[in-house]
Amino acid sequence: MLTAEASGVCVICPTPFTPDGALDERSAAAMTEAYVATGATGLTILGIMGEAPKLDAEEAMRLVRIVLKHAGGLPVIVGVSAAGYAPMRALAQRSMEAGAAGVMIAPPTGLRGDDAALSWMQGAAEAVAPAPWVIQDYPQATGINLPVRAIAALAADPRCMMLKAEDWPGLDKISALVGLMKSGEMRRIAIYGGNGGLFLPEETLRGADGMMTGYAFPEMLVRVRALLAAGERDAAMDLFEAHLPLIRTEHQPGLGLAVRKYVLMRRGILAHATVRNPGPKLSDATRAEVDALLARLARRDPVALKLAAE
Amino acid sequence: MLTAEASGVCVICPTPFTPDGALDERSAAAMTEAYVATGATGLTILGIMGEAPKLDAEEAMRLVRIVLKHAGGLPVIVGVSAAGYAPMRALAQRSMEAGAAGVMIAPPTGLRGDDAALSWMQGAAEAVAPAPWVIQDYPQATGINLPVRAIAALAADPRCMMLKAEDWPGLDKISALVGLMKSGEMRRIAIYGGNGGLFLPEETLRGADGMMTGYAFPEMLVRVRALLAAGERDAAMDLFEAHLPLIRTEHQPGLGLAVRKYVLMRRGILAHATVRNPGPKLSDATRAEVDALLARLARRDPVALKLAAE
Amino acid sequence: MLTAEASGVCVICPTPFTPDGALDERSAAAMTEAYVATGATGLTILGIMGEAPKLDAEEAMRLVRIVLKHAGGLPVIVGVSAAGYAPMRALAQRSMEAGAAGVMIAPPTGLRGDDAALSWMQGAAEAVAPAPWVIQDYPQATGINLPVRAIAALAADPRCMMLKAEDWPGLDKISALVGLMKSGEMRRIAIYGGNGGLFLPEETLRGADGMMTGYAFPEMLVRVRALLAAGERDAAMDLFEAHLPLIRTEHQPGLGLAVRKYVLMRRGILAHATVRNPGPKLSDATRAEVDALLARLARRDPVALKLAAE
Amino acid sequence: MLTAEASGVCVICPTPFTPDGALDERSAAAMTEAYVATGATGLTILGIMGEAPKLDAEEAMRLVRIVLKHAGGLPVIVGVSAAGYAPMRALAQRSMEAGAAGVMIAPPTGLRGDDAALSWMQGAAEAVAPAPWVIQDYPQATGINLPVRAIAALAADPRCMMLKAEDWPGLDKISALVGLMKSGEMRRIAIYGGNGGLFLPEETLRGADGMMTGYAFPEMLVRVRALLAAGERDAAMDLFEAHLPLIRTEHQPGLGLAVRKYVLMRRGILAHATVRNPGPKLSDATRAEVDALLARLARRDPVALKLAAE
Repeated sequence: MLTAEASGVCVICPTPFTPDGALDERSAAAMTEAYVATGATGLTILGIMGEAPKLDAEEAMRLVRIVLKHAGGLPVIVGVSAAGYAPMRALAQRSMEAGAAGVMIAPPTGLRGDDAALSWMQGAAEAVAPAPWVIQDYPQATGINLPVRAIAALAADPRCMMLKAEDWPGLDKISALVGLMKSGEMRRIAIYGGNGGLFLPEETLRGADGMMTGYAFPEMLVRVRALLAAGERDAAMDLFEAHLPLIRTEHQPGLGLAVRKYVLMRRGILAHATVRNPGPKLSDATRAEVDALLARLARRDPVALKLAAE
Repeated sequence: MLTAEASGVCVICPTPFTPDGALDERSAAAMTEAYVATGATGLTILGIMGEAPKLDAEEAMRLVRIVLKHAGGLPVIVGVSAAGYAPMRALAQRSMEAGAAGVMIAPPTGLRGDDAALSWMQGAAEAVAPAPWVIQDYPQATGINLPVRAIAALAADPRCMMLKAEDWPGLDKISALVGLMKSGEMRRIAIYGGNGGLFLPEETLRGADGMMTGYAFPEMLVRVRALLAAGERDAAMDLFEAHLPLIRTEHQPGLGLAVRKYVLMRRGILAHATVRNPGPKLSDATRAEVDALLARLARRDPVALKLAAE
Repeated sequence: MLTAEASGVCVICPTPFTPDGALDERSAAAMTEAYVATGATGLTILGIMGEAPKLDAEEAMRLVRIVLKHAGGLPVIVGVSAAGYAPMRALAQRSMEAGAAGVMIAPPTGLRGDDAALSWMQGAAEAVAPAPWVIQDYPQATGINLPVRAIAALAADPRCMMLKAEDWPGLDKISALVGLMKSGEMRRIAIYGGNGGLFLPEETLRGADGMMTGYAFPEMLVRVRALLAAGERDAAMDLFEAHLPLIRTEHQPGLGLAVRKYVLMRRGILAHATVRNPGPKLSDATRAEVDALLARLARRDPVALKLAAE
Repeated sequence: MLTAEASGVCVICPTPFTPDGALDERSAAAMTEAYVATGATGLTILGIMGEAPKLDAEEAMRLVRIVLKHAGGLPVIVGVSAAGYAPMRALAQRSMEAGAAGVMIAPPTGLRGDDAALSWMQGAAEAVAPAPWVIQDYPQATGINLPVRAIAALAADPRCMMLKAEDWPGLDKISALVGLMKSGEMRRIAIYGGNGGLFLPEETLRGADGMMTGYAFPEMLVRVRALLAAGERDAAMDLFEAHLPLIRTEHQPGLGLAVRKYVLMRRGILAHATVRNPGPKLSDATRAEVDALLARLARRDPVALKLAAE
């Protein structure tokens, strides 16, 4: 079960598809096992990067079951964000019954004002009860502002366990939340960085308990966090820097998911790089650029590529 | 079945809820029958005003079945708009199997550029095939611009039967489309005005084949169209003007739906005015204002209120 | 000078242009005098409807001077909204020196969160000091949410004199502010309704002290307010209703300004209906529709059209 | 004068302020000279990063004159973007008279549809005539989509000399434009990459003629381009990668400008890091992070830091 003391790396899983657009169940199983092997401490599925709105209800549950079966006991968080509470409740209930550890909720676009955002989220938490839940604060994608005081108010719910912190810029927000928790003005929840790992070292040093992101080399996230924990900042930065060009390329809005799936295919983690229609397709030029980045990464960080070579 | 020669008044139905937020099946049946009695030539359910995103898949199908059962043979259009194709396909398929006449599709927020909007809609039409379908052009709600040439391109699909024209301002767009159809540059489809009836006389005189909107007195739409068809413009305007204050009050973003449901409750068409959570609630002051508008309307247009009095 | 006890009708003036796009100084003078004759208690220039961003700094000041010269002593409020404080300060200073009664400020698009909006407005008030100032709350145009508590906080500034209330729907917000002022929780400022007069009766009855809007027949605003003050609600509604079709047509986003200028030209108040490029142009069909509305209005409310006939 | 054959690095200059918010003329002069010494081939002022909307008309012209005086003959491009044409025309005219090489234009937020964006830009080009001009395509900031065919249409204007390409993701757009120019379907203009240098190697290899961006170490842009031109891709990537953590930190929306000014102050190029109010302020934690990045960069790329040490 998800707890507010969680830490580590929680991998955001893409949803694998076959070239004809069907759910690729085989890749889903293999991907799950590959992610477990990276040293991750949890998995998240059906997030914004998981193409969740492109799945129908039955497909979503099929993916939930496959990932749970292969997750080797790691907690699995299911994104249930939707424009209304009833579909969220339905997916949350079925996912928890299937064995999920908790659910993740982002506010929908179109809410007006901080109070509307807070009260929408409070209603959503009630709708998915009794599931433990994660706040996803991702204004770049949702257009919704959740100020520090709203997050603190949401954290007062004892079933709120975690914040996926993806405001951008967002480092001072993490510091503010950590400060409130230290001074006892806010109930302690786990804070996980996101944004594709783009600020991994800074988020960690600001006090984030973990990372929840889908960067195609989760091992790097695990290793950089370990190096930072050991006080090896330079080694951590060396490793981070080697991956940063690819992180940057995966972090592009829209296209980034197609890049990530292509890298996961190159790594042998997915059988196909298919993004379900409608979605971006990689041009030959982009594929060549990613290939060049991977070739360079293989020289800069041979460890990261071991898995692919096996 | 829906055809491109449709005309008349197609009522956008709200989704009735009981005070505890459950689907109010009894009101759904009664509402359907009341709408049939207004002289409408069709019904639309699960549109943007139908709180569709607040229903789970099972509830949506329950509503579809109830309305179809009580529609007295009128064609029923089902709104299937969603962020992804798979849920649209699932709902379209099940609705058509249940007896729907066609489906309605609006583009999702967040598409960038006219080409993206057009190609998203083309993919959506394919996803719901072989269902006849309606374009919903409603930039105020979706943020998506569908220029005249994109609508003309969509109309080339022989299964595209209708445009719900809700751009605002949108009268010149209707004229442009009517012109293209007359000159043979665009396949003929039915054009229905919307926007709560706010421009009913003008839309009709610009050449709209019908109205598809949820104004709480559909009889007025039917009568104004009949008066205009008979060349009785002044009488049409007299009747329209009597209703305009209420049309205006129902046309407010967000709150308008709560007003409409309250009026439908006052008319005896719905048992409850409940908007499902999260949604606007009417203040006492607003209810008093609507009551005053209805009292005045009863004097200005006694015919419209007959139904309520019975 | 503008005070917090202001009441009445403050006419939002368009900026007149000649057909070649130059500032039409002659019409500016004539328009000002015509508005003074309507019974208005104030004038506002360079607002959002005043095409202010299309003027350069020198043109803006020329308009300020002409209107001040012909305003017959009525207080003139100058819209100074801009993306930055320095241009606002410059225009405010020069306008106050020229004799303006105060300035009006709306937040710029793009601010994130309620706190950002509040602190932007507080900085703006400081930037224009010592000018008395008006809050323009117009989320439809700015995308910025100013919650009740932010408006109350802004009203604490002793130079804040007025709120132009254009949230939509916004009646409950007016009631909430009036309530706070009555209970002493908020410093008293004048509250003026807007939105083209679309909710004139309701805004007045909710406690608005005045109307600040640009509807092309300000006399109607004056008369409806007087009838309501005299307790003649039915007569007020009769008069309002006669104008509502035109109010609705002027209230369309973008196009509405072109309609309004056309009506003002038809009334003889402007010499030309020109909207400065880039801006909407009226189609022949739209002009014909407006002509029909005016013809009907002349029968429904002969008083309103007297001025035009003279 | 600006030509369509331009190439190299055009530095986007911030506007320097003293701690009390006044224009820092001394820093403006020093900064200009420092930029000239970086090997840049041009300068751009009053861009989006130049806090242009925060300046009044007189301040803007003061900055133009200072930079022109110290630019050592390099072409200086002046950002003139505004919501209306008249202020753009005024600033363009005065800037060209003062000796600017051309002007840069981005569309304003709020335009609806591709055609509106194209025709707005065409009108803007006419408004600034006869100044040579640069298209700024920066949808992240403007919300406006300029598709490839609109850019090609704009390039048909013989006074259009350059595209600042900041769509994101935008590499395939650059390739598409380069392809159209090669095949003769589009008039040749210079294409400059932007986005803070985040995709410098890829943009260059896709065929961009130059970079126009404000990254605080323009020397790096010059050197990476030279290495790529010499076929030294690995060396280019080594150098780029050393700077990428700082590029990423400067590329944050809003906060990035404050980071950039802080780095320029640390380099001795600006006397103060002040961002004019209202604007972001750096927390102590952020400053410490930037200091750490600079310390690391000094080890990774000693050449870049030479200037600072002098």
